[in-house]
Amino acid sequence: MVSQSVTIDRTKSTARIERDIETLAGSDYTRSSESIMRYAYTPEYRKTLDYFIRELESLGFDHFEDPVGTLVARNRPAGEKVFGVGSHCDSNRNGGKYDGTMGVVTALEVCRLNEELGLGLPLQLISFLEEEGSGFGQMLLGSRIIAQRVTEEELRQKFRAIDDGRSFWEHAEEAGYEPERWQDAIRILDDLTGWIELHIEQARVLQDTGNCIGIVGAIAGYVHADAMVHGRDDHAGATPMDFRQDAGIVMAECMLELERLAKEAGGGTVGTVGEIELRPNLINAVPGEARFSLDIRGVDEEGFRSMARDIAAFAKEAAEKRGMSAEYAQRQTLSATPLDSAVVAALEEAAEASGKPFMTMHSGAAHDTMIIADRIPSAMVFVPCKDGISHSPEEDANPADAALGAEIMLNAIRMFTASRQ
Amino acid sequence: MVSQSVTIDRTKSTARIERDIETLAGSDYTRSSESIMRYAYTPEYRKTLDYFIRELESLGFDHFEDPVGTLVARNRPAGEKVFGVGSHCDSNRNGGKYDGTMGVVTALEVCRLNEELGLGLPLQLISFLEEEGSGFGQMLLGSRIIAQRVTEEELRQKFRAIDDGRSFWEHAEEAGYEPERWQDAIRILDDLTGWIELHIEQARVLQDTGNCIGIVGAIAGYVHADAMVHGRDDHAGATPMDFRQDAGIVMAECMLELERLAKEAGGGTVGTVGEIELRPNLINAVPGEARFSLDIRGVDEEGFRSMARDIAAFAKEAAEKRGMSAEYAQRQTLSATPLDSAVVAALEEAAEASGKPFMTMHSGAAHDTMIIADRIPSAMVFVPCKDGISHSPEEDANPADAALGAEIMLNAIRMFTASRQ
Repeated sequence: MVSQSVTIDRTKSTARIERDIETLAGSDYTRSSESIMRYAYTPEYRKTLDYFIRELESLGFDHFEDPVGTLVARNRPAGEKVFGVGSHCDSNRNGGKYDGTMGVVTALEVCRLNEELGLGLPLQLISFLEEEGSGFGQMLLGSRIIAQRVTEEELRQKFRAIDDGRSFWEHAEEAGYEPERWQDAIRILDDLTGWIELHIEQARVLQDTGNCIGIVGAIAGYVHADAMVHGRDDHAGATPMDFRQDAGIVMAECMLELERLAKEAGGGTVGTVGEIELRPNLINAVPGEARFSLDIRGVDEEGFRSMARDIAAFAKEAAEKRGMSAEYAQRQTLSATPLDSAVVAALEEAAEASGKPFMTMHSGAAHDTMIIADRIPSAMVFVPCKDGISHSPEEDANPADAALGAEIMLNAIRMFTASRQ
Repeated sequence: MVSQSVTIDRTKSTARIERDIETLAGSDYTRSSESIMRYAYTPEYRKTLDYFIRELESLGFDHFEDPVGTLVARNRPAGEKVFGVGSHCDSNRNGGKYDGTMGVVTALEVCRLNEELGLGLPLQLISFLEEEGSGFGQMLLGSRIIAQRVTEEELRQKFRAIDDGRSFWEHAEEAGYEPERWQDAIRILDDLTGWIELHIEQARVLQDTGNCIGIVGAIAGYVHADAMVHGRDDHAGATPMDFRQDAGIVMAECMLELERLAKEAGGGTVGTVGEIELRPNLINAVPGEARFSLDIRGVDEEGFRSMARDIAAFAKEAAEKRGMSAEYAQRQTLSATPLDSAVVAALEEAAEASGKPFMTMHSGAAHDTMIIADRIPSAMVFVPCKDGISHSPEEDANPADAALGAEIMLNAIRMFTASRQ
């Protein structure tokens, strides 16, 4: 067992983290003058990787990039066990300074503190490629390539650049990578004993509950689907109430039922109708068709899946009651990801020792961590972001929270690593 | 008093009406190969007026056009009393063969029957300009000009062609009219003792109740408005149900409340949410803003106006209950138009005499008749249209119903005219 927790110089770490974040928000590192906008195989993304490489080299870390561009840096030779820290440093197309980048910056700070304090922890930093999907419209692409959750056909043909329509493969080759070796990317995980990713929360639970740190025990799974109600497009003035088949009304009933189901389910299961399309969508027409999206998530796998079944059945029944019909079509689904209880426990103990208010929670948003969590004992640390705003230039977070996160990660890794030796 | 009702050769009238309708659905009379599309100052609209002029000239009618292009034809010299019949022959931009045009064609058939049967009724046919607003985005434009419900500023500057952005004034001049004399258009109404417009119903009440004819006793007034709900745009996965300010949910509550209020109001009052806009309108975002249109109509003036006030108040209250705010903004409003009880009674008596099933009803849709009804004793006759479909190339109606309408109009005009002599 390791002795008591290390306490870092939080002021110093805060300043370093802030400097890294602000540097990477500079004009060299974003394609937009309005927001952060960087993605794979652009000069701005290259410069961002090079910034991290320079900093990590100065700490004596070796670095390489996987066959498509995920950055890896470690302070132990290949074959020796290491603990993984990191996130992603690409942004969405109208992004802020913190989403992803703060996680890599904090991982870098963990590496710095490890050297500075002479802790001797074996570490591997990873900055995953294309988490946001801004380059090729594919979220979590780098981690999915590592976990072999893509096909060669997709990489060669199907995944195409938003900017010019050319394939991922072509772009990767042009950037000097070797996409034909993509299956070797899995080797990144070979020596990992565990993994922690720090990320901004992207919601307002931490802010609104007054916590500086969230220890993430699970990542929610989700169902993305559409419901379509088929009614009859009629003249809004000339059609008496009793003669209508108003698809919008069935939609409204479904929206309220979804809210009721989610509140009833509890346990953090959520349901959202975020996207609506009425036809013909005119002030003077009874809607003949209504399409609405369903975003249903939770960490209780059976809980959120049964909610999706319930709302599909409710839509059909509500439509039929009014002489209409409804369909349900799933777009995409992903299972909930339980995180590793030992890593989570180590983080909780380290957070407790920090003396700062924290909570254990789950992540409603998807992260690279969910792709590797079935292979590597993993957990995440959340820090608050102002008013829950993310994916926007308005995004705001406090480097002091990330410094606290670095301290907690460092202590958790010490405990976890010691317990495994 | 006139002696008993005239019975016409309905088969012959049906054939003539069908011929007129089909002729005017030909390629010379529409700008689209997919639908009927004709509007003021286009060659297709000019040819349509010319068709009616030729037919009316062959009956010995004189004709003129008002200073902007409404067609008038009469079988008595100016200064002598006449009874008005007609409708409009412009279409919406993706229209059918019947909306408006069937009313002018049936009015022409009334004129034909009057000559053929030697009834000697003094008649004036009117084909109003730009009822649909396809040319300049202004509904009921011709009748509003006649009734002086426009300003010269609007005609000279504000009302602009959808096609090229040039002013109504410029287009009218170019077509050979004298827009500077627009205020003289009101003279069209000088000699009118009464007015009947036949139109397709644009709803399915007649079809679904098995009636061939609707006698219209009132035209509904309306309130067009928007409600805006201001909530908070949050991540759909990361934001627990209790932390949300989902503007879409308040909208759904308002949609169901509007339906409840309309059903409770009865008397033909209707309420519709036809147009919806969510922001950001993404599957994975809790809607931060919701805008939805309100179309509220009725013949009971206080009834539909109080419904508009009630839903505005409900929206505010429902939003506040959830920590959000809501606004209500009126776009446009028009009072209900009671039609003339003597003309309505004459139509009912004539319909009764026809031996065919009919009903008295109100019009939920707006028509030129509502613009002149406060000056001229007016009523309308509705004929069924298939499944209530209008403003669409799918529009379908039965010329035999229009022939029956012509017989009923003819007898009603005889009775009404005789009773005034």
